[in-house]
Amino acid sequence: MTLTPEAPQTVSSERLTTLGSSLRQHLDGAYAAERSVARATFPTDSMLRDPEWDVEQSREWTLQRLIDLEKHGFGSAGVPDGADAVQDPLTAVVTFETLAHADLSVTIKSGVQFGLFGGAVTNLGTAWHHEEFLPSITNLTLLGGFAMTELGHGSDVASVETTITYLPESDEYEVHSPSPAATKAYIGNAASHGTMAAVFGQLIVGGESQGVHTILVPIRDDNGADLPGITTGDQGHKGGLLGVDNGTISFDHVRVPRRMLLDRYGGVTETGVYESSIDNANRRFFTMLGTLVRGRVCVGGGAGIAARRGLSIAIRHALKRRQFPASGRPDGVLLLDYLTHQRRLMPRLARSYALGFAQNELIEALVKVQGGEPSTEDEQRELETRAAGMKAVTTWFANDTLQEAREACGGAGYLSENQLVEIRRDVDIFATFEGDNTVLMQLVAKALLTDYRKEWSDLDRSGVVQATARVAGEQMAEATSANIVLDRLASAVRRKPEETTLVDRRWHALMFEDRARHSLESLARRMRAASKDKGDQFESFNAMGPHVQFAAHAHMESVILKAFIDALEECQDPDVKDVLERVCSLFALGSIYEDRAWFMEHNRISSGRSKALEQQIDSLCRELRPHALPLVEGLGIPKSWLGAAIIDN
Amino acid sequence: MTLTPEAPQTVSSERLTTLGSSLRQHLDGAYAAERSVARATFPTDSMLRDPEWDVEQSREWTLQRLIDLEKHGFGSAGVPDGADAVQDPLTAVVTFETLAHADLSVTIKSGVQFGLFGGAVTNLGTAWHHEEFLPSITNLTLLGGFAMTELGHGSDVASVETTITYLPESDEYEVHSPSPAATKAYIGNAASHGTMAAVFGQLIVGGESQGVHTILVPIRDDNGADLPGITTGDQGHKGGLLGVDNGTISFDHVRVPRRMLLDRYGGVTETGVYESSIDNANRRFFTMLGTLVRGRVCVGGGAGIAARRGLSIAIRHALKRRQFPASGRPDGVLLLDYLTHQRRLMPRLARSYALGFAQNELIEALVKVQGGEPSTEDEQRELETRAAGMKAVTTWFANDTLQEAREACGGAGYLSENQLVEIRRDVDIFATFEGDNTVLMQLVAKALLTDYRKEWSDLDRSGVVQATARVAGEQMAEATSANIVLDRLASAVRRKPEETTLVDRRWHALMFEDRARHSLESLARRMRAASKDKGDQFESFNAMGPHVQFAAHAHMESVILKAFIDALEECQDPDVKDVLERVCSLFALGSIYEDRAWFMEHNRISSGRSKALEQQIDSLCRELRPHALPLVEGLGIPKSWLGAAIIDN
Repeated sequence: MTLTPEAPQTVSSERLTTLGSSLRQHLDGAYAAERSVARATFPTDSMLRDPEWDVEQSREWTLQRLIDLEKHGFGSAGVPDGADAVQDPLTAVVTFETLAHADLSVTIKSGVQFGLFGGAVTNLGTAWHHEEFLPSITNLTLLGGFAMTELGHGSDVASVETTITYLPESDEYEVHSPSPAATKAYIGNAASHGTMAAVFGQLIVGGESQGVHTILVPIRDDNGADLPGITTGDQGHKGGLLGVDNGTISFDHVRVPRRMLLDRYGGVTETGVYESSIDNANRRFFTMLGTLVRGRVCVGGGAGIAARRGLSIAIRHALKRRQFPASGRPDGVLLLDYLTHQRRLMPRLARSYALGFAQNELIEALVKVQGGEPSTEDEQRELETRAAGMKAVTTWFANDTLQEAREACGGAGYLSENQLVEIRRDVDIFATFEGDNTVLMQLVAKALLTDYRKEWSDLDRSGVVQATARVAGEQMAEATSANIVLDRLASAVRRKPEETTLVDRRWHALMFEDRARHSLESLARRMRAASKDKGDQFESFNAMGPHVQFAAHAHMESVILKAFIDALEECQDPDVKDVLERVCSLFALGSIYEDRAWFMEHNRISSGRSKALEQQIDSLCRELRPHALPLVEGLGIPKSWLGAAIIDN
Repeated sequence: MTLTPEAPQTVSSERLTTLGSSLRQHLDGAYAAERSVARATFPTDSMLRDPEWDVEQSREWTLQRLIDLEKHGFGSAGVPDGADAVQDPLTAVVTFETLAHADLSVTIKSGVQFGLFGGAVTNLGTAWHHEEFLPSITNLTLLGGFAMTELGHGSDVASVETTITYLPESDEYEVHSPSPAATKAYIGNAASHGTMAAVFGQLIVGGESQGVHTILVPIRDDNGADLPGITTGDQGHKGGLLGVDNGTISFDHVRVPRRMLLDRYGGVTETGVYESSIDNANRRFFTMLGTLVRGRVCVGGGAGIAARRGLSIAIRHALKRRQFPASGRPDGVLLLDYLTHQRRLMPRLARSYALGFAQNELIEALVKVQGGEPSTEDEQRELETRAAGMKAVTTWFANDTLQEAREACGGAGYLSENQLVEIRRDVDIFATFEGDNTVLMQLVAKALLTDYRKEWSDLDRSGVVQATARVAGEQMAEATSANIVLDRLASAVRRKPEETTLVDRRWHALMFEDRARHSLESLARRMRAASKDKGDQFESFNAMGPHVQFAAHAHMESVILKAFIDALEECQDPDVKDVLERVCSLFALGSIYEDRAWFMEHNRISSGRSKALEQQIDSLCRELRPHALPLVEGLGIPKSWLGAAIIDN
């Protein structure tokens, strides 16, 4: 096996335009200092995996890179390394985002080891687990998997079949897979490197089920052989992330000592009795799942960085590449001077900024809830909702953007040396793991409805609602802060929107707020009606599936616009602000344009105004075209890190 | 290197539902017999490439598979193997489509060898070339590349820099790359296997340029070493199609005998004088490019099959997989019973049928023009326009569909053993090669405008128009047959569309026809106005870029609907017809739904009717849900060929 490190590169020595540097500062926002340090100290000698490497080489390289990065402080950063150490969610997220500037297999393997496996021990375990395991988890001498998903139960975590049965005679638990469908699947670190797993299963004490709990189970010996009763499987070659060793695990009556149960929220006492600080089993389940929130914040943030890498490559290419001579342009027209090309890339660039500001706000909320300061239950639930929505929105955006960037670079975009296809392959599964996006958007809608109508809980009899509720928790609160800000702006123009211009921020606010409010209200009405329906309850709720998705989408768009508006209010530099105002308008109009049919259907805009939207988007693309390079620099990916041959020469 | 053939499979022994079998028959259409024979005789012992193979292994396996397939009649079929043999475009296209049921590297390498390289010799060469080279091209003893694209001139073929200079003193041509940008790039068979290339360059005779011509140039000796003056390069690992050895070629004053010029449309006589049967250089150029049309028909057809493979896997999975228990469904709800899941897959299934019928019509036109029967210049131009549009529309659809299918299968969709990610990787570049899709859509619009207004040719001064014209040819005719059929249907309801229902085919026809006609008329008006504009002519036309794309899209949608309507008129079986009528409605409403904003903006539908569209689409999804399996069977991909572990057990 070859582990060829690339030639050392000079770190961040490139000079940015003044505007680019300022934009970067603003997009980094409240975390500009942390991100700047991270960029300056990130080891860049071996950032990208060789696409020619096979699965085995990729896995070994990824593990080695993880070990190297840990030595440089880019591994377990922010994850406690013992019982006394504290969590630092900000450092953890910034570290994850920084890793996403390079090979994504490393990013995800890091997330599996520190975020998921380490996170389970930290958040679901107690002092003994912390002392016993966190030091070796953070220094990578103990590699572990997060064994939640089962073959037969992908998104339906509450239905996992694996059993964790307390055996009073020996004071042990027996972990067992009662069927092939109970096999744990897609588990990172399970195929090869992991020697332990945090296993989710139904806890059974005295014949009674206490719901889903998590237990640490050793799975391999020091030679890499499966331990007795354990069968691991290798899921082999995947669409991407070849460096992550995803595999299956099944258990045949495997016994582990009682103390291996991660018992922060519930476990069996020395006297053999089940005890929990949370009486309601459902609530206990969602409290446990709530600890997953940081993973979603990280995954969304990482996908946002992946999209920025794609846009950076495609736009830098479009600023170099000329095709077809034209009048006054005998050497050919720069790709980015074609309006069709601008329309492919500039609105996505604007959205990339918008998502960046929204990610900053999300990190703020995470730090508030998990950073040791007091926080309310409402804040925690708003965080969960927003993390779910941002994860879905950003990962879909990343996939779409990387494909557009690939096509915008033509045949060159298809060569692995230009990275776009490699990033695209790796980020694909971000739309599925840490919560399938469609299911996550259901969670968002469910949380909004819960807040909108308390009687909503009475409707929890149908399958769709149950399905949502089982994952979402029963009492998530609506994330209302977006509405308040937008409503304040919108109220000024609510009576006479036709007097506003298309770039009037108050009009954008009015449209976004209206879309979110109306789609939620009408959904709530339909839900009420469906609950009284005497027919097939499942079908009554099933019919609302697309509406559920739209309401969640509309809400998230408002959350994102609100974050952008907040960031604009922070901005003091008039030149930067001028550019960011246009970027915000392009994002806002792009969002309204995509849904212009909805706005017309609901009499929010006339057909004339709808037509004018596209012209205004074209104008904004033209106005921002001269700032394309600074805007790319502002995305914060150093050019030398992109590793794309196409823009190097 | 291992070339492991998979275990032999029984060919097409599966039993279909009666409806599935009938749907397959109808979708195969006029070519049902040919396709049935192809399916029955296609060698299935080694259909899929091992995703673990590296570039070298993939290339060798692909070449070997190509040789095996040629022995079984699935290689050069339809390509003449000598001067006396005739072309058989139908067999060539059906063979290509059949190859697309298996590994796409094989399909594309076959296309490079027989379609492009062999096609250049056949269509641009004369008797000597045919006798000398076609036998060894078709029996694969002479592998060659189609060296058109240059690094600096992707879609702008007229601007290729490579020179082919006639040297009277030695009666030779000198082939030369005057700059790095002149390097031939992305050329299949160039990196490794090819020993000759059909090279496109500017022909210079007596110091005068005669425009782009094609010449055969030996590039490698029998040991695989570059010949003197030739430098080949390996473009290495790509986003997919690892079995195709794409590379670069540059020429340093390489001399070849005079007879190596493919001189069907022009060349130097024995007396050293340039002669051509086509006086106009521009027209000559487009006549030569016109021979590329079969490649586009093949690529579109292959992409259509790739999409069918993806839909077959995702829908078969959704008919097996249950998630989340619901009222009356204690074992969980089948994925395909969720409306959100239906909405992801069923409209794409409907479009897959629609594109299949349109592909059948396209093949018919190809056979008419290239099959030896007399055809008019108008028919030839309509074929070129339609082939360009169908290639763009179908390859974009394939990429979108395979990604949706991947996500619809969740984590399992990401495992290479389930094929979706592999097909997706391979088909990605279909959107770029054989003409970049965005440029192809410009060609379609240009052809429509040419027909719509003859004065359009007067406007050919701006860059955009030039760019389009250079590729499209000057006098392409509009493909009008779609309009005639739709207009006949639409005329009955033109005065009172509000009296029609949403599933009234006449209303669909009216909407499609209106969209195509109005977008073209308004584009023509804008073009006229722009031509009188005193400002920057490039910018005046550049501003119409998105409108150009929309007009082309609207036209192609009409072409596709018309093909579906024609197929429905052929259908005699009432049960099949009933299902296909709903499929057609789902396709048509899906298309109107996607553009409903446009229809409202142009007062073609009210906001109320627009809202009703989605409900009707939901209803059609529900109505077609019970026929999902037969509809998948009708796509014509035998289940055992899918090679997806997820649906096998």
